Amino acid sequence: MNKVITIGREFGSGGRELGRRLAEELGYEYYDKEIIVEIAKKTSLSEQYVQEIIEKSPHALYPITVAHSFSFVDTYAMKQTQTVFSAQEKVLKEMAEKSNCVIVGRCADVILKDYHPFKIFVYASLDSRVKRCIKRNANTQDLTEKKVRKYIKSIDKGRAKYYSFYTGKKWGNKLNYDIGINTTDIEIKEIIPHLASMIK
Amino acid sequence: MNKVITIGREFGSGGRELGRRLAEELGYEYYDKEIIVEIAKKTSLSEQYVQEIIEKSPHALYPITVAHSFSFVDTYAMKQTQTVFSAQEKVLKEMAEKSNCVIVGRCADVILKDYHPFKIFVYASLDSRVKRCIKRNANTQDLTEKKVRKYIKSIDKGRAKYYSFYTGKKWGNKLNYDIGINTTDIEIKEIIPHLASMIK
Repeated sequence: MNKVITIGREFGSGGRELGRRLAEELGYEYYDKEIIVEIAKKTSLSEQYVQEIIEKSPHALYPITVAHSFSFVDTYAMKQTQTVFSAQEKVLKEMAEKSNCVIVGRCADVILKDYHPFKIFVYASLDSRVKRCIKRNANTQDLTEKKVRKYIKSIDKGRAKYYSFYTGKKWGNKLNYDIGINTTDIEIKEIIPHLASMIK
Repeated sequence: MNKVITIGREFGSGGRELGRRLAEELGYEYYDKEIIVEIAKKTSLSEQYVQEIIEKSPHALYPITVAHSFSFVDTYAMKQTQTVFSAQEKVLKEMAEKSNCVIVGRCADVILKDYHPFKIFVYASLDSRVKRCIKRNANTQDLTEKKVRKYIKSIDKGRAKYYSFYTGKKWGNKLNYDIGINTTDIEIKEIIPHLASMIK
């Protein structure tokens, strides 16, 4: 059975960087945005719409262009969400079957539980996440700390709802993960070799 | 400045074993029960009484032999608790000043914050903690799973109250620690060398 590492992460905590570096160090495949692309292919939905479904609360989603009545909208939105989730399951399982891999987000820790993944959760203080986001988007105009803070919270709220909706578990609850890494005071690239040898 | 590693741990999660092995691997001093002994020496209280104060809610403690009135008892108990906490602060700072060390429990992560400790929290599922406790005390008669489960919960409740009372922080909250290690599916001795090299 291939080795699978899953990474849950708070927005702005550097979870994606950690995942990418870890995959490089281990020589594993790395899947992140590629998952969205594959789901979009399988469902014929746009990548942007798939992304929205995955990043927001399933209940809150509906394509406003088909809004005839609330009940129709609700049913349609739920159906789309379920279609995306089914495709997501399929895509993740295909990836795990193909080779050793690191998968960021997308409830992979639960969907791939039969592969006994090593489950990491990456998090940090809100202040340090705000700083990281501002640094990452240094050239973006009109980026106030207040806006970033609000955006981080809304993304995390969506992730938590999506995770809880599909897995019945609480997103970020430490018992769902093998290891939790707080990047507030840790330099990600420095811990990668040690983390890699711990998992190998 | 000496290197300080602090270990918070849920009862039965193997936090003590992890701390001891980590100290051995790093060649650091290891402090656990030694802290109680030193506090007892400094306060002239019995080791057992110091242990009780540290493991239980400060409010719930009072020596029944001096129970004349509730208000007197409360005042006396609070004073004793504060005496123990002051001694604990002193003992921990002396230990951190002396050499590199690993310290288990006793709010050391907060008390020694000026030493910038590497803060680990060790935890596991309740089921695996019950199993570990029963295995550890295999020769103890009359040890039912139900009793162990109840005991674990009461110890953790006490630790949480003590930590929150003195630090104003939530015990076990992942933001208080640099790394969280779930020992449910991890073999402690196998991760030690990698954890040690991560911290060094």
